[in-house]
Formats: sequence, structure tokens, C-alpha cells
Amino acid sequence: MESSIGIVTPQRMHFAEPLALQNGSTLAGYDLMVETYGELNADRSNAVLVCHALNASHHVAGIAADNPKDVGWWDNMVGPGKPLDTNRFFVIGVNNLGSCFGSTGPMSLDESTCTPYGARFPVVTVEDWVNAQARVADVFGIRKFAAVMGGSLGGMQALAWSIMYPERVGHCLVIASTPKLSAQNIAFNEVARSAILSDPDFHGGDYYAHGVVPRRGLRVARMIGHITYLSDEDMATKFGRALRRAEALVDDIKAGANGNGNGKDDGYRFSFDVEFEVESYLRYQGDKFAEYFDANTYLLITRALDYFDPARTVGGDLAKALSHTTAKYLIVSFTTDWRFAPTRSREIVKALLDTRRTVSYAEIDAPHGHDAFLLTDSRYHNLVRAYYERIAQEVGV
Amino acid sequence: MESSIGIVTPQRMHFAEPLALQNGSTLAGYDLMVETYGELNADRSNAVLVCHALNASHHVAGIAADNPKDVGWWDNMVGPGKPLDTNRFFVIGVNNLGSCFGSTGPMSLDESTCTPYGARFPVVTVEDWVNAQARVADVFGIRKFAAVMGGSLGGMQALAWSIMYPERVGHCLVIASTPKLSAQNIAFNEVARSAILSDPDFHGGDYYAHGVVPRRGLRVARMIGHITYLSDEDMATKFGRALRRAEALVDDIKAGANGNGNGKDDGYRFSFDVEFEVESYLRYQGDKFAEYFDANTYLLITRALDYFDPARTVGGDLAKALSHTTAKYLIVSFTTDWRFAPTRSREIVKALLDTRRTVSYAEIDAPHGHDAFLLTDSRYHNLVRAYYERIAQEVGV
Repeated sequence: MESSIGIVTPQRMHFAEPLALQNGSTLAGYDLMVETYGELNADRSNAVLVCHALNASHHVAGIAADNPKDVGWWDNMVGPGKPLDTNRFFVIGVNNLGSCFGSTGPMSLDESTCTPYGARFPVVTVEDWVNAQARVADVFGIRKFAAVMGGSLGGMQALAWSIMYPERVGHCLVIASTPKLSAQNIAFNEVARSAILSDPDFHGGDYYAHGVVPRRGLRVARMIGHITYLSDEDMATKFGRALRRAEALVDDIKAGANGNGNGKDDGYRFSFDVEFEVESYLRYQGDKFAEYFDANTYLLITRALDYFDPARTVGGDLAKALSHTTAKYLIVSFTTDWRFAPTRSREIVKALLDTRRTVSYAEIDAPHGHDAFLLTDSRYHNLVRAYYERIAQEVGV
Repeated sequence: MESSIGIVTPQRMHFAEPLALQNGSTLAGYDLMVETYGELNADRSNAVLVCHALNASHHVAGIAADNPKDVGWWDNMVGPGKPLDTNRFFVIGVNNLGSCFGSTGPMSLDESTCTPYGARFPVVTVEDWVNAQARVADVFGIRKFAAVMGGSLGGMQALAWSIMYPERVGHCLVIASTPKLSAQNIAFNEVARSAILSDPDFHGGDYYAHGVVPRRGLRVARMIGHITYLSDEDMATKFGRALRRAEALVDDIKAGANGNGNGKDDGYRFSFDVEFEVESYLRYQGDKFAEYFDANTYLLITRALDYFDPARTVGGDLAKALSHTTAKYLIVSFTTDWRFAPTRSREIVKALLDTRRTVSYAEIDAPHGHDAFLLTDSRYHNLVRAYYERIAQEVGV
């Protein structure tokens, strides 16, 4: 694996001051995993916070010191000479509270009981994450970010930053996101959660004590997720109705795992084993995810997605929710994204215009659905590059 | 419950002659549940076969004699004075092989072992169903159907009828269907099957012997299905982001089942219990389904969906697959159906036109997604009514 940013090492920051959460409870003390790239300039004006989505982490770019295969999730976006150029900007990635990559979450020890939090970990929200991230900024002495940026759930955090800390955000980059989930979005999350909650190995969220993991539920949850990340067209192009590769089938047969049909029909095996390429892909993605992701974290993060709705406390009026912001905005959507379709980004743009904010909007014609925000696409990357060029001029870096 | 057709009683037909299946195996003998409405005329020219989709049955219309709440699944379409008018036509509903409503399927006793078939039940296909249905027609002495009609998977059966028995189909009505599943369609089926297959109560398909049912898997499978049956807009209209009704919440609290949040935020409960209306709806649908549907049948029927592809044996050329048909066609799609979108119906229309068949096509502007084919909609029903009027004139009834 390569990365122009080289090897990176995260730091664990401990926060002793209790954090008041939206659900009314308080987190006594907590750790956050943080990774940075580039150099903070003397007047601390060149900092960019990159917020992560569901299954990502603080490890935004570079190669993890402890695992040469672990390249950051937005390494194509962040680095020297990349759209978000670390020769000019100081970039911070923070693993959110409740996640499972080192920050305090359900797997962490609750010092009051000396057992993992498990189901007792509070249901955190996008706003809670933003408050926790603000404390990270404080540690670095960053009064105002040149930009806060994120895709999908990360875009929600960027949007929330601009509302909650208007004076601390110069630019807000909201990519492939939405001002709130639709009923269908919530429905997909609910099915994924149901798969986890009903897995007998879930044990009410305290599976750590039982030495098991609700692997089956996590696997189904991830498979559902993947369907929503890819576009219909992309799936058709990638897999179509292609039957699983012959060599893979031969491997199966050698291993004695072939289907129970006798293969009379050319191709079909008449079984519930993997038959089509798309099935193989989904099973692989599901299995891989179940190996590394924590089920309680999946529940928490999908719930944070469901709950995000900055206009809720102002009668559903998004323009009103945005009326005290001072950031300039870049909103980006992708034509084939059906999870958070361009119409959802346009709702944000409309609300910003309604309340007379400065906003640029781009709808990128890309075939890769929601996943497009993570992929290398020259139009998309050139746009973001140009936008950061402008920010660089503003802050003089 | 009311039905203009009144009380109906199905008949169980036994077929002793073995049925050769597409997977190469043979079903020694089998039963099919059959229900009929109206009267077969003297020259047996007024028969219409109605084919069912995933979770339906032979009980197309009327009120089941053994359950006054059980109204047929297409009762709004079939009956005296209805679009498919039983004063003129003799309508047959057949519960397909492998289903769980009385026809031979995984729950049935395999006479060779005196145990339920379970996982040993063969993976049947749309073509197998059509062959079995043809024998039902033979029992009634019906040489040619005035029409074969179905929605969704039922439409695939109608299409297959017109290809496999061209001389026996006068008209072919294919509603909200597709000539083959897309990769995304297969993906949804695969996730549903994975939920069932990985349920510890599935026991490799032989759960009957263990006195259990893979309820959790079935529940998740059905929830996924429901998301694909409704349109995004319809979900938004029906549920939006509405929180679950206050009275339902009070019931919960009375029952001691309230969430673990302390409710500080107005509305949100900060838990993984039902919070939004759409969650309540999905859980209810999932629970209800798990009560009455057989998991092995779910696997079989989704696989039959995956496998359906009448053009596969002729190099993917649908027009060629349809070139020996003699039926006239009515193809109907619904604008907001994203499971089998209008573009999929148009593929059938194009292939029919390419091979110079007679085809009428209607795209109904309806908000209810895939489910629209089951709902009462005057434009849709008037169209089908007019089409049957024409058929009635042709066959002189």
C-alpha cells in the first residue's frame, strides 16, 4: 500500500472534564483517538477538521504505523498535493465517541463498574460528537477551523459545527449528505439494527461478557448497508447477473461445498449457496465487517444518523436553523447516490440561500452511488481542490 | 370483512404423475391448492389463470370459508363486476409448489422418509410452477386460457406461460414485473436469505424437527421486503419522521417497556426501541409475517425470482425468447415502483415490439411503489377492466 503522506501514528487524548450529552446524561471522562497531518501554522488559522462516517475513524490518511495495509479512508483526498493539501493545511481526524477504533465507546471499560459499557453506553448524537470535537480543537489551541468537512454522516457533523459553533467555522464542506434522514433511510437502519438486536449472541448488548460477538446480525446489517451505498447502475455494471466465477466454483466443489442441485441447467446450481457474483460480494463484505466492527457501535451510529435533524427544534425550518451561521458552504452531491440523493443536498442549498448564506453547490455526475464521495473522481477532486485553493488564499497559506 | 364474491372454499388437487423439474430432479407426486371463481363456460374459453407473487396463495378473492377475516389478496381485482369480472370469466388461483399454503412444499411430508421435506425440497423455478399449473388446466379441460395474469413474480409466470405454452394463452397480463432481476434485486433477496440461513433456529432448513421456527430471520427478511415494496415518497407520506404515537408510547410505559433514555429532549427517547413510526410499522409487518410464513418457502420463492430469466438460454435476447409466442400482451408498470421500475416493463415491451407482437403498455402514475399493483386505483383498474372487456368480446362472453 502507498500513501503520499507516509506512516502516521494516532494519539490518544484523555478528557477529564465531564461531557453533558443530548440525552440528558453525562460522560464522566473519556478518551478520543486523534490523528493529524501537516503542520499547524503560527496563527493556527490553517486547521481543517475532517469528520468520519459510519464505519471510519480518526485514520483519515497515511499508513497506520502498526499495520502497513491500513491506509486512511480518505487518503485520496488528504495529503501533500491532494485536494486537501497537507502542505498548506493542518488536518485533524477524530474517532467519534461511541465508535470502536480506540475512542471511548461500548467496548471501553466503565470505570464505575470495571466492566465494558456495553448497552449502558449512552445514545450519543451528532451534536455530542461536535461538542467532543470542539474540545479537541481547544487542546490544539484552534479557535477557528479554516474548514470543517465530511461526507455522509461526516457532512452532518460539518453542518452541525456551522450551527453550533458558528464563530469557529470558516468553511463548511458537506458532501453526499442530507439535512435529515428520510423514512426510508430510517427504515434501512431499523432493519440493520433489528438483525443485530435479534442475534442470540447480542445478549442485550453485553456480549463481551459472554465471549461472543453478534456476528450474524452485523453481517446482515453490513450487507443491507452495502446495497444502499452502491447505485443500481453500479451494481449492474459491476455484477449484473453474472454467475460466480467458474474457478471459485471449482474451489467450492473441491472443498465439497457445492450446491445441492445436480447442475443439469447450464450454469445454475439450484441452491441457496452463492450463485451470483453480487451474492459473493455482499457475503464477503458482511463477513469482513463482522470481523472488525463492534455491534453496539453500529447501533449507536445508525441511531445518531436517525436522530440528526437540526431543524427539529425550530419547527422544521432549516433556513431558521442555519440563520446564525457565518461559514461559507460547499455542498456536493452525486447523481446516482440514492441513499442521500442530490435532492437532499439541494434542501440544504435552498435553506442556505433562503437565509442569505454564501453557498456553492455541485452535483457530480458519477456512477458509483453514495460510495462516490470516497472514490477518486477528477471532476469531484478538482472541485474540492479549487475550493481549498480559495480557502488557502483567504487564510494566507 | 366484505367481498362481493362471498365465501369460497379451496380444493386440494392431487397429481400422481411425477413432475420433472428444471434442476434435473423429479417430484414423485404432489398436491396443489386451487380456488376458482365464476363458471367455466361450455366451450371452456372463458378461463383466466391468476398467478401469485411471493407471499400470496391460491386464495385470490372472496372470503375463506374457515376464516371470515381472510379476504383474497386480489379481491379488489377479481369478482362480479370487478375489473376481472367473474360474471363472465372463470378465474383460477393456484398455490405454487414449494409455497406454504397447502400445496406440496418444504413443510409437507416426504412420503419416502415420512419426515417433512425441509431443506430437501427441490429448488423450484417459475417454469416448474407453470408446468404444474398447466396440469391444473388439464384437470379442468382448459385447452387455452383466455388470459394468464399476474403481478410481480406472478407477472413472470404469465410471461413464462406465453413462452412455454404459446398455444394455450390468449392474452398475457404482466403487471409490475420484470424480464429478470437486476443485481440490486438479487442483492436484496440475498440479504433476506442470509438473515434466515444464519438464524440459529434455521437448523439447515430442518427446523420442523426441532420444534422451532427461524422467526428472527424471517422477520428481518420481511422488513427488507417491505422497504422495497413501498416507494420513498409513500414512506415519507405515510410516516415521514413522525415519532411513534404518544398513546402507543404510554402503552409501552404502562407495560414497563419504555426506552432507557430519560426523555430530556422533547420527543426523542434515546434508545434502540421503536422511536419512529416507520420502525413500528416494519416491526409489526415483520412479526406478523414470521407468524404465518414458512422460512424454507421464503428461500425457495426468492430463489425462483433470482433465477427467472427467459432470455438466458437464447443468449440474453428477450425478443428471441418471445418470438414463438402467440398471445396478445398487456404490460403495466407504476411510476414509483423502484423494485421493478417502469424501465423494466419497457424492456418487455421493447422485446415484444422487436419481435412484432401485439402489446399494450400503460405506466400508471401512482404513489404507492411496487405495492400499487395490489391496491385499488381507478386508472389502473379501469385500464384492466377495459382490457378484459376486449377479451370478453373476443371469446364471446
